[in-house]
Amino acid sequence: MSHDVGLKFIGKVESSGEGAKIRVFPEYCEGLLGVEGYSHLFIIYWMHLRDNEKHRRTLIVKPPRHEGAPQTGVFSTRSPSRPNPIGLTVVKLEGVEECTLTVSGLDALEETPIIDIKPYSPRGDAHPEASTPEWAMHGPPT
Amino acid sequence: MSHDVGLKFIGKVESSGEGAKIRVFPEYCEGLLGVEGYSHLFIIYWMHLRDNEKHRRTLIVKPPRHEGAPQTGVFSTRSPSRPNPIGLTVVKLEGVEECTLTVSGLDALEETPIIDIKPYSPRGDAHPEASTPEWAMHGPPT
Repeated sequence: MSHDVGLKFIGKVESSGEGAKIRVFPEYCEGLLGVEGYSHLFIIYWMHLRDNEKHRRTLIVKPPRHEGAPQTGVFSTRSPSRPNPIGLTVVKLEGVEECTLTVSGLDALEETPIIDIKPYSPRGDAHPEASTPEWAMHGPPT
Repeated sequence: MSHDVGLKFIGKVESSGEGAKIRVFPEYCEGLLGVEGYSHLFIIYWMHLRDNEKHRRTLIVKPPRHEGAPQTGVFSTRSPSRPNPIGLTVVKLEGVEECTLTVSGLDALEETPIIDIKPYSPRGDAHPEASTPEWAMHGPPT
């Protein structure tokens, strides 16, 4: 069942790669007050290129970038094909200029809509002891 | 601007607190294949009680549970009042039984709709060196 909750696109990825830029739209810019106090942020985005029936019906994938990965449920992978094409990346905040964040480590394409930004809390969010299946230890970090 | 993207509620919080239960709806249950291989997960949810105009227009808050916190932009806090009432918690996976996960550390109320579950990758997601403003070091971890 789908719910028309009226998702708000609060910004977009203006450029990707190293020194990626995230532009927050003017009407939401005030929500960035104090963001420069954090070294890391969660960027939550809407993977618009996967927002179609085929990808949103996908429940099992074989993670292509991880050698040896078996058929796996999408909730056990970071696959962009999933019921809600929500992406999540922890980024390092390199700079803030007006409504634009410069970040490193963002795994999102240009023009991707941003749906939320949250500060990263090492006390709640850092679990270096976390374990994963063997296949997830190789290839890209997410 | 709001986008009717058709958000899918893939499950719900069946009970909260210690040993919280997350029930994934039968039509999405296959997406959990292999989840028991992870010790930690990201739970992404829709904070339905804040899904109203007043809370979704809030851009500045004074985090009530953090003594000494100044007026802060919502994207610099984990406030449930924000343009999209998306919640994010890292939980420890305690068990899986059919379509139900038992987890610890979930900061979500009973009946909260779940919109995504992602595995936690210590290589990409653990940043114990991350820094925050002084006020965020006290009170609850997020």
